[in-house]
Amino acid sequence: MLHRIVDFSVRDVRFPTSAEQHGSDAMHTDPDYSAAYVVITTDSKVQGFGLTFTLGKGTDIVVCAVKALSGLVIGKFLQDIVGDFRGFYRLLSSDSQMRWLGPEKGVIHLATAAVLNAVWDLWARTEGKPLWKLLVDMDPKQIVSCIDFRYITDALTEEEALDILMKAQEDKQHREEQMLKKGYPAYTTSCAWLGYTDEQLKQMIDANQRWDVSEAISWVSELSEFRPLWIEEPTSPDDILGHAAISKALGTLGIGVASGEQCQNRVMFKQFLQAAALQFVQIDSCRLGSVNENLAVILMAHKFRVPVCPHAGGVGLCELVQHLILFDYISVSADLHNRMCEYVDHLHEHFTCPAIIEKAHYMPPKNPGYSCEMLESSVVKHQYPDGEVWRKKIA
Amino acid sequence: MLHRIVDFSVRDVRFPTSAEQHGSDAMHTDPDYSAAYVVITTDSKVQGFGLTFTLGKGTDIVVCAVKALSGLVIGKFLQDIVGDFRGFYRLLSSDSQMRWLGPEKGVIHLATAAVLNAVWDLWARTEGKPLWKLLVDMDPKQIVSCIDFRYITDALTEEEALDILMKAQEDKQHREEQMLKKGYPAYTTSCAWLGYTDEQLKQMIDANQRWDVSEAISWVSELSEFRPLWIEEPTSPDDILGHAAISKALGTLGIGVASGEQCQNRVMFKQFLQAAALQFVQIDSCRLGSVNENLAVILMAHKFRVPVCPHAGGVGLCELVQHLILFDYISVSADLHNRMCEYVDHLHEHFTCPAIIEKAHYMPPKNPGYSCEMLESSVVKHQYPDGEVWRKKIA
Repeated sequence: MLHRIVDFSVRDVRFPTSAEQHGSDAMHTDPDYSAAYVVITTDSKVQGFGLTFTLGKGTDIVVCAVKALSGLVIGKFLQDIVGDFRGFYRLLSSDSQMRWLGPEKGVIHLATAAVLNAVWDLWARTEGKPLWKLLVDMDPKQIVSCIDFRYITDALTEEEALDILMKAQEDKQHREEQMLKKGYPAYTTSCAWLGYTDEQLKQMIDANQRWDVSEAISWVSELSEFRPLWIEEPTSPDDILGHAAISKALGTLGIGVASGEQCQNRVMFKQFLQAAALQFVQIDSCRLGSVNENLAVILMAHKFRVPVCPHAGGVGLCELVQHLILFDYISVSADLHNRMCEYVDHLHEHFTCPAIIEKAHYMPPKNPGYSCEMLESSVVKHQYPDGEVWRKKIA
Repeated sequence: MLHRIVDFSVRDVRFPTSAEQHGSDAMHTDPDYSAAYVVITTDSKVQGFGLTFTLGKGTDIVVCAVKALSGLVIGKFLQDIVGDFRGFYRLLSSDSQMRWLGPEKGVIHLATAAVLNAVWDLWARTEGKPLWKLLVDMDPKQIVSCIDFRYITDALTEEEALDILMKAQEDKQHREEQMLKKGYPAYTTSCAWLGYTDEQLKQMIDANQRWDVSEAISWVSELSEFRPLWIEEPTSPDDILGHAAISKALGTLGIGVASGEQCQNRVMFKQFLQAAALQFVQIDSCRLGSVNENLAVILMAHKFRVPVCPHAGGVGLCELVQHLILFDYISVSADLHNRMCEYVDHLHEHFTCPAIIEKAHYMPPKNPGYSCEMLESSVVKHQYPDGEVWRKKIA
């Protein structure tokens, strides 16, 4: 059965989390966790739901960018898209006029993520599988056909990617069963750890881009007695060489550097890996160009032997990224050492299939899709500025 | 006299250049040279004009972003802004909710440039000086007070910047007179060189991000017999380490690497310089965060002894960047070796004070301001989608 995309909508949905300072950090003092929320509908009446995460103001800018991309999606057949997903990724990310606004970074790339997340959700639904299972069952050749290798072949070629995936076919079934039974290790950064002791709570610090390079080194060195596993975002997310200098200085103290939630694309992650600038790769399901670009980063991280520890929280990020980390374990890394996926217990009630945590582990989603369909009642209530919640606030 | 900003407008202005393939390159096959055009007005009736350059589709996204920033500008006194310009730069670039959309890159940073370009124009007009002269006459301490040194202190401290500016005070008057008399060397990339021979025309090639790293090295190596001065944008504008590898390989052949028109901010330029990844720094007046961030890059380039050769063309870029390169020569570099400023002879007729070229040199602007005020008749005619030009095209 063919599925032609005939309808496309995008809405500005904001949760007034700043009122209670949920999610506030050193650089983002009053976030209203928000999303540009996309729904695509096919002529066969199947729908795909996607989003990108934002912090309140400016969500309308992303919505505007999503609308600008929608013309590249409407009218397409799902089969044609996934039959040449690399080509479709490039169509969206390299539009001759719009790429000037990025390329592949910032607002236009966040919008690309929202659109592609919806397409992946649609694909998984038409296959009747949760997204992680769609990926795990996929032929390695089809996996690599979804990745745009432009600008990363000096770190990872298509052949190398295929080789990694082929090698990990061994024991895949066993790891899938293990995940279905026990789930994937989770940790939280919001006040307390899930299932961990106070001692372990001390092991994580997050700088949120507060410091210049030398400041980061001296401040974190002073905290070394607490033996933190990593320092997160010690400086600008753009500063590869700065992170490399920090990694080198802190490595002697046994402290790693983690970053990624604001790492703009695979070209940046490539360099962070080439420069040994990160010891933990924090992929983000909405910052990078959806599953396509995350696959590239997961495979590069594997080649460079750096563990992937996804960023999550916000709104919908846990729901999305759990699929990617399950794929990483089952089909790529086959390793759980020093690996865990962030979890924040917040705003899940707005999703039709919220992430499920049991004994501090993400339990693999079972419903078809990419898990980011929101309750329509929540969307309507939190639409900005006309939803009930905002009408009251603004009045 | 105080100047309070009481009115703010932004318009989507597009020139249908794609119809004649003006400005088309390997990655941008059908550009409609466009601008998000900002006008700010004070209670004293002085106006400031600013813009950022775009390629057509997506200009509305930048307009949306400019509107989101306008609330941070309206009601402010110009004196308060320029009295703490570093603080105002950071206010715009680090808004707690909107920085997630960048930070300092892509749409939100292009919008920041448009807004700050208008503020600098306003400042120069209230002082009755062209912008380059405002900068040249400014006390070095005030120059550095306009720069946000966050994330670049490992390459350039405030003290070092001040030291560079103090040293260049010597003979400044002489260089200013020289510029007023002879102007600053220009070159063009649109079909022919200004005042240069065919032999010299061969010396420049522009790859427009077409290649991966190894492709760039092998293709350009084959062109070495033509002795190109530089290869421009050989690969992704985000690939610092890739440019470093290309620079190293081509350096032995006497070919330099130039890039910058899509280099997103000072943190990236810092690393390009630290990694010896560029031999020519192509600053852009609308990609970076206006004069403030360009000052940082100009000073870093000087410290690393790399010539600044600005990117221009598009619409308004020549008008703007000529001011910056005049400042670079008179107040920073004091050097013209291997230095020139791009010029494209296109769309200047839409400006009230178009750039003036004499004998292949930019002649210093004399009118007060930053030279990017457009003719109101041109703006009205080219507004998208309601201006006469577009109404006809769409019909």
